[in-house]
Amino acid sequence: MTERARISVAIVDAETSGNVGTVARAMKNFGFKDLLLIDPPPYGPGTEAAGFAGRARADVLAEATELTFDALVESYHTIAFTSMTTSGDTKHIRYPVDTPDALAERLNGVDQSVALVFGRERIGLTNDELARMDELCSIPADPTYPVLNLGQAATIALYELRSLTLGDTQLPDDPHKCASPIEVEALFDHIDSFLDTIAYPPERREKTEIMFRRVLGRTDLTPREVSTLHGVFRCCEQLLDRHDLGQPQE
Amino acid sequence: MTERARISVAIVDAETSGNVGTVARAMKNFGFKDLLLIDPPPYGPGTEAAGFAGRARADVLAEATELTFDALVESYHTIAFTSMTTSGDTKHIRYPVDTPDALAERLNGVDQSVALVFGRERIGLTNDELARMDELCSIPADPTYPVLNLGQAATIALYELRSLTLGDTQLPDDPHKCASPIEVEALFDHIDSFLDTIAYPPERREKTEIMFRRVLGRTDLTPREVSTLHGVFRCCEQLLDRHDLGQPQE
Repeated sequence: MTERARISVAIVDAETSGNVGTVARAMKNFGFKDLLLIDPPPYGPGTEAAGFAGRARADVLAEATELTFDALVESYHTIAFTSMTTSGDTKHIRYPVDTPDALAERLNGVDQSVALVFGRERIGLTNDELARMDELCSIPADPTYPVLNLGQAATIALYELRSLTLGDTQLPDDPHKCASPIEVEALFDHIDSFLDTIAYPPERREKTEIMFRRVLGRTDLTPREVSTLHGVFRCCEQLLDRHDLGQPQE
Repeated sequence: MTERARISVAIVDAETSGNVGTVARAMKNFGFKDLLLIDPPPYGPGTEAAGFAGRARADVLAEATELTFDALVESYHTIAFTSMTTSGDTKHIRYPVDTPDALAERLNGVDQSVALVFGRERIGLTNDELARMDELCSIPADPTYPVLNLGQAATIALYELRSLTLGDTQLPDDPHKCASPIEVEALFDHIDSFLDTIAYPPERREKTEIMFRRVLGRTDLTPREVSTLHGVFRCCEQLLDRHDLGQPQE
């Protein structure tokens, strides 16, 4: 197990209890533990936060730390998530920004206490708050409506940064393991001999073989699917055999 | 403008009106328009859905289409989003799965009517429903808690698939434009001459120059930042000049 970055998640002045719960749930889904709350709404048992947090209510939410904005800035390398606006004379406060995928790459191997900082619902972080952040990050979106909900922005950010916190995911290493070329070729051979067995019309033979190759070639068959297809042809062959209907194979 | 894939988003039997709104908002954030609802909760004006949808309430949500599960399966190439479970004899229903980033790549250029299908909150899609889907996709997450909330799963999926629907995002082509090596070298030259001007101790000179090079080299300075740093040194130089305090430059 390699050492991983210490990454906390901070929410500044959230209005909606449910959003705090949504962020806590995303943290647990993607391997983050340390939730920092600045001027939070109620988030104890029975609140919307507890309802939205799912199984994160027992750890991430229950163990959240309340602190001041000053303490946040002093104790962490702060990365603010903000909707991109480049207008007017605040541009130097709001530029340059990273995207979440670029941030995941940059933070890989960085050894410091990082806080991902999310602002209040309607107005995000103020320019004064943004000016005190060490870095900015913005989620690419439709230019006609790039303003994400707080909980949704945090969900995407934590999903993108999961490689910094998770050793493994629930998915197998290859969630779509393809059959080897040898296995696939053996299937095509079986199809060939099956076409012999059923005395497929010679004049349509070539086009049909190509069709099988094209269709099955596009589908990235798994070993199990290859095996199942063999089974289908074999089942049919055995039925024909039992009734002496198949064409004899040389 | 190139032709882009026709991608709809379907929600099957959602319990919570707010989740329908969250999905609608994410659709508008990431350039999706066509929302399909199977057995939906109330989502008209004044409902939680309308509140959570933000500016998507006027188009994505208002123009949503209600249809049956049978109609969905018959009219679209269906891609189900499901939490990955590989246990027991339903494995053939739930495997193989794609990940959202692999799906974005695969669907690029595909010319068909695709529906991204999200299931109900607590149990997702049933095995019977999954068996009728054309493809499966699962979001990689912490194996100890891989079950995402419906709205959060859809938000991540639509974020990952945004390249299929959005020509541009609100971010500039390069949201972090770096200064050129020539600009950065000119800054180091300026620092050198500045150190001369302030008669920096010769025995510390080399290490300090290296320090500047390392620190500024790591930060991917923007042209504006380079220009601002020049300005800081220049300001100091001019002050020293006015008081005849600077060391004369050869």
